[in-house]
Amino acid sequence: MSSFVTPPVPPMRITFDARMEPSGPVLTRRMSDLRGLFADTAAWEASLAEDPVVYEVASSPVPEAEGELPQSITTIHPGKVGGEFHMTKGHIHPRPRGEIYLGLSGVGGLLLFDGDKPEWIPMEPGSIGYIPPGWAHRSVNTGDEPYRFLAVYPGDAGHDYEWVLRNGMGYRVLGGADGPDLRPF
Amino acid sequence: MSSFVTPPVPPMRITFDARMEPSGPVLTRRMSDLRGLFADTAAWEASLAEDPVVYEVASSPVPEAEGELPQSITTIHPGKVGGEFHMTKGHIHPRPRGEIYLGLSGVGGLLLFDGDKPEWIPMEPGSIGYIPPGWAHRSVNTGDEPYRFLAVYPGDAGHDYEWVLRNGMGYRVLGGADGPDLRPF
Repeated sequence: MSSFVTPPVPPMRITFDARMEPSGPVLTRRMSDLRGLFADTAAWEASLAEDPVVYEVASSPVPEAEGELPQSITTIHPGKVGGEFHMTKGHIHPRPRGEIYLGLSGVGGLLLFDGDKPEWIPMEPGSIGYIPPGWAHRSVNTGDEPYRFLAVYPGDAGHDYEWVLRNGMGYRVLGGADGPDLRPF
Repeated sequence: MSSFVTPPVPPMRITFDARMEPSGPVLTRRMSDLRGLFADTAAWEASLAEDPVVYEVASSPVPEAEGELPQSITTIHPGKVGGEFHMTKGHIHPRPRGEIYLGLSGVGGLLLFDGDKPEWIPMEPGSIGYIPPGWAHRSVNTGDEPYRFLAVYPGDAGHDYEWVLRNGMGYRVLGGADGPDLRPF
């Protein structure tokens, strides 16, 4: 099992595809890990029979420590639950730290919420989504193939997943006739 | 003239090629801005007749402020001065902050120096160079076409250029028969 390097971190060259090389930790989220995310609870429960992998997060060895700038590749597999697109759990940084997502393959979107208003940024290869400090963020696969992006974030940002379960993300993203259909949460 | 956004920064989608869109400040470094960088002073002085642009740094509007995560695209034009490849001034972050460079086009290298030992990371499209906190860094175009990379760095890192003029970068990077020739500074 790969893991984060202990500081001091040496300079390194990192290449990436679905994983990063050299590799850090790899996180796999199955449908059963996503309790409470999808509006249609019955559809979510039905999906547990196969319990598919919804997304994977492959990190570089750069640790989540103050002063470092870790990176990861997230791959969200295509699909819907009760009409709602596959998505990440979403989180907010306990410390006010910005983050960038850079689209690598497939199409998706970046949903942001500051507790008051939501924002939606369509994502594709070559676009950067900027997540300012103080905004919760979630990624959504709005296409028919895997949606993959590179994340770069300060090592001391932290991850608060409970905030999203308590506050929602402002919008739900469903499949519509002409692309993503954003509905009030 | 484009400039940095004043916080609070809104979520935004940023696309890029040679520039970023929406655009922040664009910095142009001509040969005359690079006094003291190249070992061959006579060759540098001769190059001032044409005073070519050596590199450009195009920033996104995300400001260099604490908590933000600004980005920029650097394009180093190909060329040599007294056999030494075109390069950036190089700097170290006054605050110990990591940074990443992501190769976009052309070939080059990332030269790092911690004041004691130098490191050299070859760069090409799709490779990330990780700059740990505490390492001075400089980029070098080792090819025949423009070398372009995306930089992502914490907004409170700062830039100390004087450190490099005082301490050097450990290596000089000259054109050799079989690629870059690293010589002691």
